[in-house]
Amino acid sequence: MQVEVVAVGDELLYGDIINGNAAWLGRELADVGIRLDTSVVVGDDIGRIAAAVTTALGRADAVILTGGLGPTQDDLTREGLARAAGVELVRDDFLEQLLRRRFGELGRTGATGAPERRAPEMNFRQADLPLGSEALPNARGTAPGLRVPIATGVAYALPGVPHEMTEMFTASVLPDLLRRAGEPAVVVHRVLRTAGIWESAVAEALAPEVSRVTPLGNPTIAFLASGGQTRVKISARARDRAEAETIIAPVERAAREALGSAVYGSNDDSLEGVVHGLLRARGATLAVAESLTGGLLAGRLTDGAGSSATFRGGVVAYATDLKESLLGVDGAVLGAHGAVSAQTAAAMASGVRDRLGATYGLSLTGVAGPDEQEGKPVGTVHLGLAGPAGVTTRSVRLPGDRPRNRAYAVVQALDLIRRTLSTP
Amino acid sequence: MQVEVVAVGDELLYGDIINGNAAWLGRELADVGIRLDTSVVVGDDIGRIAAAVTTALGRADAVILTGGLGPTQDDLTREGLARAAGVELVRDDFLEQLLRRRFGELGRTGATGAPERRAPEMNFRQADLPLGSEALPNARGTAPGLRVPIATGVAYALPGVPHEMTEMFTASVLPDLLRRAGEPAVVVHRVLRTAGIWESAVAEALAPEVSRVTPLGNPTIAFLASGGQTRVKISARARDRAEAETIIAPVERAAREALGSAVYGSNDDSLEGVVHGLLRARGATLAVAESLTGGLLAGRLTDGAGSSATFRGGVVAYATDLKESLLGVDGAVLGAHGAVSAQTAAAMASGVRDRLGATYGLSLTGVAGPDEQEGKPVGTVHLGLAGPAGVTTRSVRLPGDRPRNRAYAVVQALDLIRRTLSTP
Repeated sequence: MQVEVVAVGDELLYGDIINGNAAWLGRELADVGIRLDTSVVVGDDIGRIAAAVTTALGRADAVILTGGLGPTQDDLTREGLARAAGVELVRDDFLEQLLRRRFGELGRTGATGAPERRAPEMNFRQADLPLGSEALPNARGTAPGLRVPIATGVAYALPGVPHEMTEMFTASVLPDLLRRAGEPAVVVHRVLRTAGIWESAVAEALAPEVSRVTPLGNPTIAFLASGGQTRVKISARARDRAEAETIIAPVERAAREALGSAVYGSNDDSLEGVVHGLLRARGATLAVAESLTGGLLAGRLTDGAGSSATFRGGVVAYATDLKESLLGVDGAVLGAHGAVSAQTAAAMASGVRDRLGATYGLSLTGVAGPDEQEGKPVGTVHLGLAGPAGVTTRSVRLPGDRPRNRAYAVVQALDLIRRTLSTP
Repeated sequence: MQVEVVAVGDELLYGDIINGNAAWLGRELADVGIRLDTSVVVGDDIGRIAAAVTTALGRADAVILTGGLGPTQDDLTREGLARAAGVELVRDDFLEQLLRRRFGELGRTGATGAPERRAPEMNFRQADLPLGSEALPNARGTAPGLRVPIATGVAYALPGVPHEMTEMFTASVLPDLLRRAGEPAVVVHRVLRTAGIWESAVAEALAPEVSRVTPLGNPTIAFLASGGQTRVKISARARDRAEAETIIAPVERAAREALGSAVYGSNDDSLEGVVHGLLRARGATLAVAESLTGGLLAGRLTDGAGSSATFRGGVVAYATDLKESLLGVDGAVLGAHGAVSAQTAAAMASGVRDRLGATYGLSLTGVAGPDEQEGKPVGTVHLGLAGPAGVTTRSVRLPGDRPRNRAYAVVQALDLIRRTLSTP
């Protein structure tokens, strides 16, 4: 089974939008073992779209198009597909009625008080189908997708809006592709999220399970590292969801056992969300004291709505004297060990806990770079955590440049409190 | 003149990397009026690369390839181009010597104390050229680029590493493309950076200049909005740099006059960098007090190296009672006007200025969303700035969701102090 992707849109060619759809489709197809050899971007031009489809189907079994399904004059994917298939575009009455109802349902009311249903006629171009093709339902927007048989192959046209595209691909295209390939028709992913462990260590821990599973071809296991965290993605194909879960279960169990406490959550969990959840479960609050990260830890903890229930606030003690005046770090500690030290991290954590009246105080001090500080090398980071049971510290050496060291240090801090609160 | 782009790499197809190179090239080509109709991604496969080049040159005058020029077995762009051109790959002695010297220069020392020059032989594949082609110098890496004449067209191969690619495109490819098109051979860009003004207002202010310049075709004016800031990009083609500057000068002058104080800098300037520069020039320091932005303002002010010279630190008073205890905001002010008010913003700015011992105190309080607060709608933001001359406040209503409101509020705060410090 071989598939090609054709993305349609001048805005992609001219770099106004990055082609994230093609990357997402490439990942999804690779996850289920479907080969993608070529991916194309063409502008809003009927001839170009038709040529790209014909070329793709000369090599592949199926082609997936994204974009160009909207109502305006420069949305030309329908016309391009009709030309490639050598058929006419025909207005589908049922689809047109659906669209008219949909636009009516938006509830705009005219001067008479009666619903005003005069949506511009242009909108109903979205009910035009190449003869012999089939509309794919769009759960999140107005433009239906298309499934167009062309010679012995098939073309699928999806909207360019990412959340409409991903939904339609998963609901309509992937099952159809797998049926054509003679494969089971449902794909389920399980993502395990890890922190405080390098990608190479994740891969090493899972090597036996990867070796066991890879020859079977189902499920597949992939590693995705970004921002100092590594995700493990287990993907299973099956006839239905329950069977897919049965295929995933033993692999997930083995992976969780191999990774232990490095797994902080699954699927869409965020590290800061898990921390907030652990605090909430204990009726506890958090305050943070930062130096090298300059506010990024507090910024991350307030990313989500509702964080004020567990997050009290923070102090960015960037200048060294503020570590004394704002956080009560003893001048003697700073003098003896320096601002970048485990001792200072411990005092910062205690200080911010006391002064901000939180259950836990979490602190970070270190050398972001590009230059060393107090003779300590770039990447040196000391973390402190003060709580009802006392103060603990942790010291790490990060390998990155300034922006990466700052981002990784935030993850280290969140992971320190996550692991502490997870311990019964 | 028509150009196509072919990006090479399995990691692009499978979505491990987003194809930012193609977007960048599309933008650069559009800026100088060169048409790009199709852009392709192919995997690491000689036949696919060759076929993509042949197809592209069947339609266009030139094709630009990115990626696949490295030293490993899966770097196959050289082989693909040789096949497309119908020629052999030949080792270039001069390039090989350059590479051997370069690897020697890395200064790894062997056990005997003598420099160890045994770089893996594989590295010298980078000295292989399709017969009749020309190497393009790589100022930032080891892999040279290629210029390969094929029939009446030409293929350029650039490295996949973005900063190597952009440098080589600008230095070697673009001048060559413009020469082939019979156009002047140098392109100079001037970017004007604005803050505190919406994109539509920028476009409106420059409408007369855009109308005047567009029919001439040179220079071009483009607007790029992101993260609450709008850039104005003026691009001129000319025979040399001096002539390009002469073409840009009157348009830049007109744009600066139309935009006035909204322009904070040009080219690679950052808003926070400009703020640090203004503070440095006055021998002044800054401290910040945040609520809805939760540390993001402080985080942005410490993005760059050397920020400790002018940035003292910050307080994230997320819980309302911390506005009293950490910043000295009067409880009566909070009671009468609420935490989200101009009065509280003013008191936060004064408080953080005093307690952190800074020349200026900058504050932010507001409603990030998704829910309203104190009966004040999402997007309400109050800013305060305390300095030697007293306290000023500013109130805005931002139109975004939670992440956008937080990001835009940071820009508003930086812009408030930027404008104040810029006033003589």
